[in-house]
This record gives sequence, structure tokens and C-alpha cells, in this order.
Amino acid sequence: MHTFQDLVKRFGDYFAVRHFPTTPATLYEPGEYFLSWGGKRIRPVLCLMGNELFNEISSHAWHAATAIELFHNFTLIHDDIMDAAPLRRGNETVHKKYGNNTALLAGDVMLIQAYDYLNRIQGNQLSSILSLFNTTAREVCEGQQLDIDFEQQKDVNLDAYINMITLKTSVLLACSLQMGAVLGGASDGNCRHLYEFGKNLGIAFQIQDDYLDAFGDPEKFGKEVGGDIRQNKKTFLLLHALEVAPPGLRQELEDLMQQNPSDKVSRVLDIFRSCGVESWANELKEKYWQESLRHLEEIAVLQVRKKPLLDLAAYLLQREQ
Amino acid sequence: MHTFQDLVKRFGDYFAVRHFPTTPATLYEPGEYFLSWGGKRIRPVLCLMGNELFNEISSHAWHAATAIELFHNFTLIHDDIMDAAPLRRGNETVHKKYGNNTALLAGDVMLIQAYDYLNRIQGNQLSSILSLFNTTAREVCEGQQLDIDFEQQKDVNLDAYINMITLKTSVLLACSLQMGAVLGGASDGNCRHLYEFGKNLGIAFQIQDDYLDAFGDPEKFGKEVGGDIRQNKKTFLLLHALEVAPPGLRQELEDLMQQNPSDKVSRVLDIFRSCGVESWANELKEKYWQESLRHLEEIAVLQVRKKPLLDLAAYLLQREQ
Repeated sequence: MHTFQDLVKRFGDYFAVRHFPTTPATLYEPGEYFLSWGGKRIRPVLCLMGNELFNEISSHAWHAATAIELFHNFTLIHDDIMDAAPLRRGNETVHKKYGNNTALLAGDVMLIQAYDYLNRIQGNQLSSILSLFNTTAREVCEGQQLDIDFEQQKDVNLDAYINMITLKTSVLLACSLQMGAVLGGASDGNCRHLYEFGKNLGIAFQIQDDYLDAFGDPEKFGKEVGGDIRQNKKTFLLLHALEVAPPGLRQELEDLMQQNPSDKVSRVLDIFRSCGVESWANELKEKYWQESLRHLEEIAVLQVRKKPLLDLAAYLLQREQ
Repeated sequence: MHTFQDLVKRFGDYFAVRHFPTTPATLYEPGEYFLSWGGKRIRPVLCLMGNELFNEISSHAWHAATAIELFHNFTLIHDDIMDAAPLRRGNETVHKKYGNNTALLAGDVMLIQAYDYLNRIQGNQLSSILSLFNTTAREVCEGQQLDIDFEQQKDVNLDAYINMITLKTSVLLACSLQMGAVLGGASDGNCRHLYEFGKNLGIAFQIQDDYLDAFGDPEKFGKEVGGDIRQNKKTFLLLHALEVAPPGLRQELEDLMQQNPSDKVSRVLDIFRSCGVESWANELKEKYWQESLRHLEEIAVLQVRKKPLLDLAAYLLQREQ
């Protein structure tokens, strides 16, 4: 068994090769440029861990992990075009550096390349892996479209937001784990529980992400807090506050979002606190974390095999076990 | 055996169903909208014909044909974004009607859906079909990128242009035929010849397309001639004229392209004629047509089975057989 830190390192080394032909360089260099930044590689490592939960890590799992990482990067390149984002992790985005048209094509060809890695999986597992991958890929597109839709919508209820965030981010985490499990020969029941573990963990992580952006310690969080508030981003916190705030406070919150005063962040945080948003968010995160753990417990393998996944989950959710 | 007209009709009926889930409608309606316009459906029909060349048309060939048509439409949606084209076949393009971001996602999800149709192909042919499809899909992206590159380049030589047009349009025709053949159980040799038949036919067709845009009879051509000349589009004709024109004429041609006078089309056509472009283009088209026929002849099946493909090729190239 490997720890997740070990697998992050191993996957990083494995993935640090060219993934595209050399010509035409105008098409393929932008993709190589984007991939060269590195990254947390959480998703491919989840695939390897899902595989090792049931078996020794197979070459098929490495192909699947590579496909997942390429798919994730494809979504980032296209998302950056949609968001007109000039920077990602301090680097110029692909569309900013090479133009929108090339970025669009560089994304397309990265998705195709992901399928080419999946096609290295031989035997009768290819079809079920493709089926899971296709469903998930479609869901990720749905999540991104719902996110675009919500930006235009005044009222977004919390359930709709959870559904969007699940599609946009959690299903890929869940799919990564399940692809590893399928390739490790896991039963359908074990696959389902592992999928649900990943999905609920992803939702808990997203709640935490929204929480830290508002209430986090800037030193530990690694970036300035309040970014979401400044941008009027619909988050778990804002949507809940809009649902539970009494009419006067709700009006004040809406005015702050429209008027963008210089003390907006601190005043919105005050409203959040007076609506009990802080404890509510912690409870909601806890609920998804517990649900996640429940599914991990249900997986019928020796407890000791689950340790790396439990460590990773605790690390991601900044919890003591 | 079916004629291609018969298969166009049959595929049209077969394809006229929903290809996407109903929700979120904001993601899937744009794709359904684009697919509802119909079209010539040449590529999927080539797949069915490639299949019937060797066997009765199988359900797998219908899935592959559907995947090919979805892939082709994915490329059109993304190409329209890149070209900022407001109209296609008289209809508002997807990005014009729904915005660039949704069009980008609608294209992405159409590509994913194409793979989902491929995944309905069961058994040991799935992997080789995917491999051919992935290679072709990558090549189509390469062709589109080279087309973008060439727009910025002053000098494009004819060989580079032929390579670009082969990647951008011909390989998908060739791949469509070959996918049908693979699914029909054809030998590797037969598959290769059928691929080359389609590839060379595609190049001949593209030469004809460029030719008709300049020298065609507007009544028969169905659109105004000279569009490529007005837009300074790099075509077989222009690139050849720039290569063979004596310095004075070449300068005149370049001036016309820069200055865009009102009589530009007729003056460029005069230069084309005086450089012998018309007969050169006909000979080049003939060369690829003959090459195409040569490969069709090499396919080891009864001559009578080749009749529908020969009819289609003659129809596309407006030739008596």
C-alpha cells in the first residue's frame, strides 16, 4: 500500500512526459505548456488509490489515471476561455497566451488524447470504463453550464447549487476512484460505495472551500479572504444567508452586492455571522463528511487497506481522524 | 446493396431523434437545435457504404455512423466559434444564438456523445475503431490549426496546403469508410485501399470546390461565385497562381488582394486564366480522382459491390463514369 503523498510523487514523475506529437507545434505546444505547470494531481491519484484498495496497482490504472488528468486539464483550458481568466496559478492561461481559437482546439485535442489513453485499457473492462467516463464527462459539462446559468439567475436555491457543484466538481473525484476500483476487479456494490465516498467528500471539500474563502485564516488559506464576496460569487454561504436572513438584513446584503462599497467584505461577513452561516456551514460540511465515511466503511475490504484513503480525506478536510 | 441516395434517406430517418438528455436544456437544446437542420450526411453514409461493401449493414455500423455525424457536427460548432460565423446554411450559428460559452460546451458534450455511440460497439472491434477514430479526430484538429496558421502566413506552399486540407476534411471521409469496413470484417489491405479511396476523393472534391467558387456556373453552383477571391482565401487556385505567375502578374495579384477594388473578382479571374490555373486545377483534380479509382479497384470484392461507391464518387465529382 502507498500513501497518497507517495502516489502524488509517483504520478507526477509518470505524467511528466510529452503527451502530444511534436507537430504541428502551434496546436500541441499550448497543451504541453499547460500540463507543464504541474498541479495537485488529486484525481489521478484517487484512481490509483481506488485501484490499490482492491489489488496491486495495474498498468491499466495508470492509463486511466493519465486519461483523467488530461480530461481535467481539458476542462480547465476551456473553463479559462469561458471565464476570460488571464491567469491560473500565476501563469498566463492558454487562451491569453495563444489566443482563444488555439486554446479551444488545444482543449479539444486534449479530450481526444484522454480517450486515447483510455483505449490502452485492454480486454472487457474498456467498455465499462468508457461508459463511466462518458457519463461523468457529460455531467461535468452540465455542471459548468449550470454554473453559467446561475450567474444570470437572481434566485438560486441551495439544492440546485449543491447539484451544480456535485456535477461540476464532485462526480469527477468519484469517477476517478471508481475507475480504479473497476480496474481492480471490485464488485458493483464496492464500486458504488467508493463512488459515493468520493462524491460526498467532494461536496464537503467544496463547502470548506467556500467557508475558508470567507472565514479562513489568510496565512493558512494561502490567499486573501473575501474574494468570493467581492465578486458576488454564489457560494454555500451567500445562498444560505439569502435564504435565512430576515427581510431587513437580506435587503442590506442585496444592497451591498449591488453597491460594492469599500468595506463590503467585512459588512457581508457580519451579516453572515448574524445569520449563523458559520456554524451552519460547519454542520453541513460535517454531514457530508459523515456520509462519506459511512460509505467508506461499507466497502468490504480489510480496514487497513482503507487507511490511505482515510488519511487523504482527513488531509483534504483539514481534520484530525 | 443500397444506393447512396437510399442510405442518405435511411440515415436521415435514423438520425432524426434526440441525441441528448432533456436537462439541463440550456446545455442540450443548442446541440439539438444544430442537429435539427439536417445536412448532406455524407460521412455517416460513407460508413454505412464501407460496411455494406463487405457485409450486410450491421447495427454496429449504424452506431459508428451516428458517432461520425456527431463528431462532424462538433467540429462545425467549434469552427463557427473560431470563424465568428453568424450563419450556417441560413441559420443562426450556435454561438450567435446561445453565446460563445454555451456553444463551446455544446460542442464538447457532442464530442463526448460521439464516443458514447462508439461505445455501443461491442466485442473486440471497439478498440480498433476507437484507435482509428482518435487518430482521425486529432488530425482534424491539426488541419483546423494549420488553417488558422495559414491565415497569418504570407507564403503557403501548395504541398503544405494539400496536407492541411487532407487533415481538415479528407481524413474524416476516409475514416468513415474504413470504420464501416472494419466493422464489416474487411482485411487490413482492403481497409487501407478503402481509406485511400476516400482520402483522394476528398482532395479531388476540395479542388473542385475551390474551382467552382471561382469558375463555376452560379446557377448550378447554388451560390455566388468569387466568394473565396473576395475574402483572399487561400485556395488551390490562388496558391498555384502565386507560384507560377511571372513577377509582374504576381505583383498585380498581390495588389488586388490588398486593395480590394470593386472589379477584383473579374481581374483576379483574368490573372488565373492567363496563368493557366483553370486547366491546371482540372488536371490536379483528375490526378486525385484517378488515384482514388485505383484504390477502389484494388479492393478485393466483387465489382458489383463497388457500384454504389463509384456512383457516389462520380456524383460528388460531377462526372460521367
